[in-house]
Amino acid sequence: MSRNFLGMKHLKKEDVENIVNRAYQYKNNSSLYKNALKDKNIITMFFENSTRTKTSFTLSAKKMSANVIDIDYQKSSMQKGETDFDTITNLDAMHPDAFVIRHFHSGYPAFLSKFTDAAVINAGDGICEHPSQAILDLVTMFEVKKDIENLNVCIVGDIINSRVAKSHIETAKMFNWNLSFYGPKTMLPKQEWIENIKIEKDFESAINDKDFIMLLRIQLERKSGSNLPSLSEYSKFFGINECNIPKDTHIMHPGPVNRGIELSSSVMDNSEYALITKQVENGVFARMAIYDFCLN
Amino acid sequence: MSRNFLGMKHLKKEDVENIVNRAYQYKNNSSLYKNALKDKNIITMFFENSTRTKTSFTLSAKKMSANVIDIDYQKSSMQKGETDFDTITNLDAMHPDAFVIRHFHSGYPAFLSKFTDAAVINAGDGICEHPSQAILDLVTMFEVKKDIENLNVCIVGDIINSRVAKSHIETAKMFNWNLSFYGPKTMLPKQEWIENIKIEKDFESAINDKDFIMLLRIQLERKSGSNLPSLSEYSKFFGINECNIPKDTHIMHPGPVNRGIELSSSVMDNSEYALITKQVENGVFARMAIYDFCLN
Amino acid sequence: MSRNFLGMKHLKKEDVENIVNRAYQYKNNSSLYKNALKDKNIITMFFENSTRTKTSFTLSAKKMSANVIDIDYQKSSMQKGETDFDTITNLDAMHPDAFVIRHFHSGYPAFLSKFTDAAVINAGDGICEHPSQAILDLVTMFEVKKDIENLNVCIVGDIINSRVAKSHIETAKMFNWNLSFYGPKTMLPKQEWIENIKIEKDFESAINDKDFIMLLRIQLERKSGSNLPSLSEYSKFFGINECNIPKDTHIMHPGPVNRGIELSSSVMDNSEYALITKQVENGVFARMAIYDFCLN
Repeated sequence: MSRNFLGMKHLKKEDVENIVNRAYQYKNNSSLYKNALKDKNIITMFFENSTRTKTSFTLSAKKMSANVIDIDYQKSSMQKGETDFDTITNLDAMHPDAFVIRHFHSGYPAFLSKFTDAAVINAGDGICEHPSQAILDLVTMFEVKKDIENLNVCIVGDIINSRVAKSHIETAKMFNWNLSFYGPKTMLPKQEWIENIKIEKDFESAINDKDFIMLLRIQLERKSGSNLPSLSEYSKFFGINECNIPKDTHIMHPGPVNRGIELSSSVMDNSEYALITKQVENGVFARMAIYDFCLN
Repeated sequence: MSRNFLGMKHLKKEDVENIVNRAYQYKNNSSLYKNALKDKNIITMFFENSTRTKTSFTLSAKKMSANVIDIDYQKSSMQKGETDFDTITNLDAMHPDAFVIRHFHSGYPAFLSKFTDAAVINAGDGICEHPSQAILDLVTMFEVKKDIENLNVCIVGDIINSRVAKSHIETAKMFNWNLSFYGPKTMLPKQEWIENIKIEKDFESAINDKDFIMLLRIQLERKSGSNLPSLSEYSKFFGINECNIPKDTHIMHPGPVNRGIELSSSVMDNSEYALITKQVENGVFARMAIYDFCLN
Repeated sequence: MSRNFLGMKHLKKEDVENIVNRAYQYKNNSSLYKNALKDKNIITMFFENSTRTKTSFTLSAKKMSANVIDIDYQKSSMQKGETDFDTITNLDAMHPDAFVIRHFHSGYPAFLSKFTDAAVINAGDGICEHPSQAILDLVTMFEVKKDIENLNVCIVGDIINSRVAKSHIETAKMFNWNLSFYGPKTMLPKQEWIENIKIEKDFESAINDKDFIMLLRIQLERKSGSNLPSLSEYSKFFGINECNIPKDTHIMHPGPVNRGIELSSSVMDNSEYALITKQVENGVFARMAIYDFCLN
């Protein structure tokens, strides 16, 4: 029996804890994962550009001895007018064990999961969720704090368009975080869809007494920049640099970082509190643990 | 010694029977194929878009433990003006065990086979043949009828441009089928290249007393549509739907289906006689058996 | 501990000898390399089109049982504006064992090697070096002459833009070759950067008493053709064909050959002295030996 990995919203707290613990074990003992996916066949489909997430899902599957088949949608029969639905049901007929899907439509992996017995793994859907990023963030938080309960976390930036923020709204409920948002008003959610999430009034309160500050990427390629007067203004009021970095607060970012906008190069490359590289490193183990959850 | 798989025209009846039987055995016993291609290196080259065929050939090779190397012709030295011939002879010098090739030129795989010791597997050439589709159709027919001799089969649609139809003209001879064609006159072959193949006069006779009706795709991307007055007219006179579906007749289609044109969604998704998904499923085992024929 | 393979300039003579010998051993005994890279993870990144080199590096890694992950830069986060540097440091955080990189910027692999613990393998950088081509040339020379010391070698063609020529300037120093260049004046280096390399005055002296003549590709895709009055003139004065081919001299070419320009088809396909196909064949073993040098 396989299980889907569609979003933090769909997971139980116990499942998330198990995945995070498993990832941490994998990081410390490679014998636990080698051959764990022998004879499993995993199809990856990325309808949006990706380096980190796609490479991470591919590498982790191969490290576990799975077969990975990537579908290049630009050379697929979708170019002949075949619908996504038919493409998937056809691939499903070949009985892969899992689909790893990134799609520009919110809810697309959940939709597909109704038509396949294979595990569906959400690698990012529209402006909805990016749950494997949430897991790797949790692994990283656990690594530096040895606990993921009751944390003080502020997410800074383009909240509305961020699937990472959406996933962490769920994480915050699960682990009783004190979660707050900070950013330009044009990038903040309207009150109605936030429960128990504070909107920080100014930079000082945003960084005050936080265990982790998560910076979000200004998604220039999606024109989230159009919600901004200017990038230099954003950097001045919402960016972290060597002058305003808070003490004893870890800085996270899902990447790719716009250097000098969300985060200065000097902090990113030199500060021990900048966890960006560690997040990417843990991403491989997080995805392994996700495969283990789905397939074993 | 390796053997080519260039077309039904090039195969003996005995070979085809062995391949079909082998595929059927593989479907029922995975231990027969695991590791069967260990240390074999297979190069795939698709000069036309494909989902089903390419994924199926890739997946089946990996399930048999082969190494698969895909050549993306758009990023190859062909972009520097290297000829196909030189590209192939160069790849041949690396001593792969097989080439799987789809090309828009008819006869291309047969041409290449003269210049390489590797097995050449035709994954579709121009408007000539699509022999692996013919094999998977035979596997599917065997699965539902337990016999592939003396069948009554009608192929409906764009016969002239169909490589599936070309392959089945050979299959029909081999297995003594009563094969007929039906479609708009602009899509039917001239009398001279059909032997023993009846052209059906009307829809009633086309569907009458058939074991299998094979619907062909209107290849909109190849402008086969230009031979039609309109798609709705085609659908009305040549499409299968819940109102005109014949009793006890299996419906096949090589895919991707243009829903509502060759076949209605209600029949495709609900009828037990619609074999489209089963064809795709059997495609994986058919390709495994083809590799086995070529390489073992 | 891993070692880089950045260029002939960076290697000791002893290292080069070991790599060449290893490749030659591999060619004669496949049991030496199977499983030699088990559980190693190799990332390939090609920022320029390639068939031979990319396929060769991929195939050789898979033959040694490594995992290979290819980054398609056109679908990577570089499309979101991420810098090459950040892409690499992020990939580095996933702890691959080696990067195989072709880039249009000279010195790019050496630059990257400063920011990763993984082995960096140069698969061609700008107009600088193409060291794996130099190694496979040496393997091929060793195969036909049983010695790579004190050879008489003339390189003919677009020297200035050739990374193969740059690599062999270093090889010549290492193995005490009598190396000369010949080509149109617009394609020859200025005196200041050649030490001990003769510029041949005419075709007769270029081909006289040589063990090997290496023809270089007119890189039409890089507009090296703009340094030429015409291709037919180039062919007439600098091309090798059945009429002017010297006796007992081996003809090499890194490929892809512009047939009829640098080399006539009749010589390329029929002469036992044309080593082009053998070079490609040896390329697989050369790259295996390079991996072995870097990772074992």
